[in-house]
Amino acid sequence: MPESFKVGDIVIVQIIKKRFLIRLQENHQLHTNKGYINHNEIIGKPPGVKLQTSRGFPAWAFRPSIRDFIMKTTRKTNIIYPKEASFIIFYTGIKSGYKVLEVGSGSGSLTATLTYFVSPEGKVISYEKRSEFARLARENLERANLSDYAEIREEDFLDANPESNFYDVGVVDIPTPWEVVSKIKDCLVNGGFIVSFIPTAGQLEKTYLELEKNNFAQIEALEILYRNWKVEKDATRPEFEMIGHTGFLVFARKTTE
Amino acid sequence: MPESFKVGDIVIVQIIKKRFLIRLQENHQLHTNKGYINHNEIIGKPPGVKLQTSRGFPAWAFRPSIRDFIMKTTRKTNIIYPKEASFIIFYTGIKSGYKVLEVGSGSGSLTATLTYFVSPEGKVISYEKRSEFARLARENLERANLSDYAEIREEDFLDANPESNFYDVGVVDIPTPWEVVSKIKDCLVNGGFIVSFIPTAGQLEKTYLELEKNNFAQIEALEILYRNWKVEKDATRPEFEMIGHTGFLVFARKTTE
Amino acid sequence: MPESFKVGDIVIVQIIKKRFLIRLQENHQLHTNKGYINHNEIIGKPPGVKLQTSRGFPAWAFRPSIRDFIMKTTRKTNIIYPKEASFIIFYTGIKSGYKVLEVGSGSGSLTATLTYFVSPEGKVISYEKRSEFARLARENLERANLSDYAEIREEDFLDANPESNFYDVGVVDIPTPWEVVSKIKDCLVNGGFIVSFIPTAGQLEKTYLELEKNNFAQIEALEILYRNWKVEKDATRPEFEMIGHTGFLVFARKTTE
Amino acid sequence: MPESFKVGDIVIVQIIKKRFLIRLQENHQLHTNKGYINHNEIIGKPPGVKLQTSRGFPAWAFRPSIRDFIMKTTRKTNIIYPKEASFIIFYTGIKSGYKVLEVGSGSGSLTATLTYFVSPEGKVISYEKRSEFARLARENLERANLSDYAEIREEDFLDANPESNFYDVGVVDIPTPWEVVSKIKDCLVNGGFIVSFIPTAGQLEKTYLELEKNNFAQIEALEILYRNWKVEKDATRPEFEMIGHTGFLVFARKTTE
Repeated sequence: MPESFKVGDIVIVQIIKKRFLIRLQENHQLHTNKGYINHNEIIGKPPGVKLQTSRGFPAWAFRPSIRDFIMKTTRKTNIIYPKEASFIIFYTGIKSGYKVLEVGSGSGSLTATLTYFVSPEGKVISYEKRSEFARLARENLERANLSDYAEIREEDFLDANPESNFYDVGVVDIPTPWEVVSKIKDCLVNGGFIVSFIPTAGQLEKTYLELEKNNFAQIEALEILYRNWKVEKDATRPEFEMIGHTGFLVFARKTTE
Repeated sequence: MPESFKVGDIVIVQIIKKRFLIRLQENHQLHTNKGYINHNEIIGKPPGVKLQTSRGFPAWAFRPSIRDFIMKTTRKTNIIYPKEASFIIFYTGIKSGYKVLEVGSGSGSLTATLTYFVSPEGKVISYEKRSEFARLARENLERANLSDYAEIREEDFLDANPESNFYDVGVVDIPTPWEVVSKIKDCLVNGGFIVSFIPTAGQLEKTYLELEKNNFAQIEALEILYRNWKVEKDATRPEFEMIGHTGFLVFARKTTE
Repeated sequence: MPESFKVGDIVIVQIIKKRFLIRLQENHQLHTNKGYINHNEIIGKPPGVKLQTSRGFPAWAFRPSIRDFIMKTTRKTNIIYPKEASFIIFYTGIKSGYKVLEVGSGSGSLTATLTYFVSPEGKVISYEKRSEFARLARENLERANLSDYAEIREEDFLDANPESNFYDVGVVDIPTPWEVVSKIKDCLVNGGFIVSFIPTAGQLEKTYLELEKNNFAQIEALEILYRNWKVEKDATRPEFEMIGHTGFLVFARKTTE
Repeated sequence: MPESFKVGDIVIVQIIKKRFLIRLQENHQLHTNKGYINHNEIIGKPPGVKLQTSRGFPAWAFRPSIRDFIMKTTRKTNIIYPKEASFIIFYTGIKSGYKVLEVGSGSGSLTATLTYFVSPEGKVISYEKRSEFARLARENLERANLSDYAEIREEDFLDANPESNFYDVGVVDIPTPWEVVSKIKDCLVNGGFIVSFIPTAGQLEKTYLELEKNNFAQIEALEILYRNWKVEKDATRPEFEMIGHTGFLVFARKTTE
């Protein structure tokens, strides 16, 4: 996508340490506490173009990465963070052509991630019983231009009739993952992956034990910490700020038992 | 890929906590310190099949994930770990269709990862000046069935004539990343990503400062820690073992400056 | 110290998650954004007494621990955090009777910690060349009732004539620790400990190499991370907030070389 | 303690990265896989003396720190690690004169630590119901010359008649800490600290809730991670090895409720 920005494009604007996600419109402005930028200064320019705010701060415009999209998701719930999204994609190997089942679309940030990686050959089917979230997830997919490869089913997964022996990966992001383990197993192909994002230690234990009971193998529970570094000549050190916790992940593979 | 295993397939066999990567051959055996398993017991069976070693230990056979491939890479150098591979793929959004430049193939474990995610529409070009590593990287790609989407160029990147303004992402895994920053910038499309894997704090500082000098934006240095959890009824806790360090990552995007 | 609180006592008042350090005075009030508390309600009561703010929030009064004192130090610089203070005390074994040399009193928070543990039989001598900090350190020691066991010498350590072969432990908290390593070695008894608190990786490297050059043994560099946990019935998890970095510590012991 | 080593002294000998705890005896040798050292070469020498093994490796002799003692405790159970011992001492402010109650002596490594810091004016009383551990704890205290300031009571704490309103700090290291919370509260002075070392998340939750039920305040649960750094000119980085978990700590203070 090396071509220049045009009206209607979604753009990420970096100003100092902050990022803004905007849709380019003629004669519009992005207002920030560092000053404003005219959309017209971006339209027709290539990605990576250097800008300047009305108050003289440097800025740059880029095409948003999938990480930018999930960090800028319009949200009503906690979102899966990039560190967990990273592990989910890589550990399960989700790529073009994969068929992925998601239980709990939430705001759609993880749905968008999964869809990004399965496209253009694959598909994501995501269940969400709360209509406001189903709508929000669809909007967020739409904004990221990913609607063609995903389907949000507004329905309680436990009442639904999903495809059997069909999905390569099942992803769970609901407060009671242990309740859907057995049903997800039916939906997965042999050897397929299940992964669940889990906030607390008690939920982790319950989910893990349910995976054992359902004869999943290679069950693996983990948490990810990451820390930014501040780099300066002769003064390189870890950043003072760090996120202490988002959630645990548990991975497993379906066996034929 | 839900079909059954056949002769010639690469299979991951899980026995207790260990994983073995084998190519199925009739009348062959996998020998381990928990006993052996006959390949014939796997041939014709579906992924996820439960097995038993000659000593009575339970085992399972799966199609290897890309993570399995990189952990089982025949190696002569340190490899990029799954945690760094995860962040590289997700942060840069490498997916089908991407054109990726790698400087330093090493044993090819990261090359295989990049190739897995860019296929089938994209391509990885990887430079490796040491012939034994170029050969090893090719072998590891071959084993993972990924050779069609990657090219190992046995050449010092600094002497080479790579395509300009062509690559979506440049990945660096050599001891002196700062030496190639400027040349990689030429190879990237506007807004393209560069990412470097870096073992020490001093190398991190040098590379980061070189990225600043070359007008990259969104420069971000980080390290990833992850910890497995041991889950048991009423006895859930973090694992005692943990890896303290593999390397730092630094990400940035090309600007038009 | 189980006796009741009296006028003039220093008290720590806990209100929800916040702690306030006050000196009890008749007819005074502690004002907080959760309401106020009358000092008179604390005077004459035993430690651990439960109180209530004017807005109805529960509160408790305790005698401050040394940790409370260092967290509530009136400060003009960064302070050593409890996690580093913990390791410094335990690794070097600073206890009653120890003679401790400190280079860089700063606001006196670490000075107070060292003095607390060496009292009543030992002594802390602390060098601070900036008069405003020397004064502040003395005030903070006074407030913690520790002045009898510490001496703040307002003087550049590099120009001073400290006692030779005298100190059990030397503690360094200045931006250029490598400059004082050799002189501190002269001040230590054989086998004595040196420890330095160091913010950046480059300073750590310089200091460590200077310790090697001065034939210190058992040189050990480390960093400490700690994470609070939020405990609730069936919802126990790590806290979301965490401090990513304060500084590195390097420890070593003087040899006779 | 700057005087020279004499027969009968306990000495820590550092050889490369390993430490050996020995009692000096005439004409004895310390045998290691790096060669041997004659005790006679240490007797009469000052702490910090440089030695050489029979195979030519450099070595040094020091008086053991309290950290050395706990790492070299003859043990039959897991020990409290230095990182947890550090926080216990500092957070509760245990120093000369403190009266400390311990429930669960185990091998006596934490007992020795507590005793080291309360001496010479304070006292540690430690309950241990298993006679083999009570004996081992006494031996380890004896070896560290700390027996005068500690008493191991071979008795189940739940059946014992400990002093009421007497102890400044209560330390718990048994698998069921929640069972002793209420009884320890009786033993503490008003405002006194309780701290428990806890391996699993479930035990942590149970203990924390029991502290709440018993009206303790300032309840704080945490875990500590620490990482060594390998420092070399232009190659400074975190160590690859790291301990992922030892246990959680929970601290609280007794209220008058």
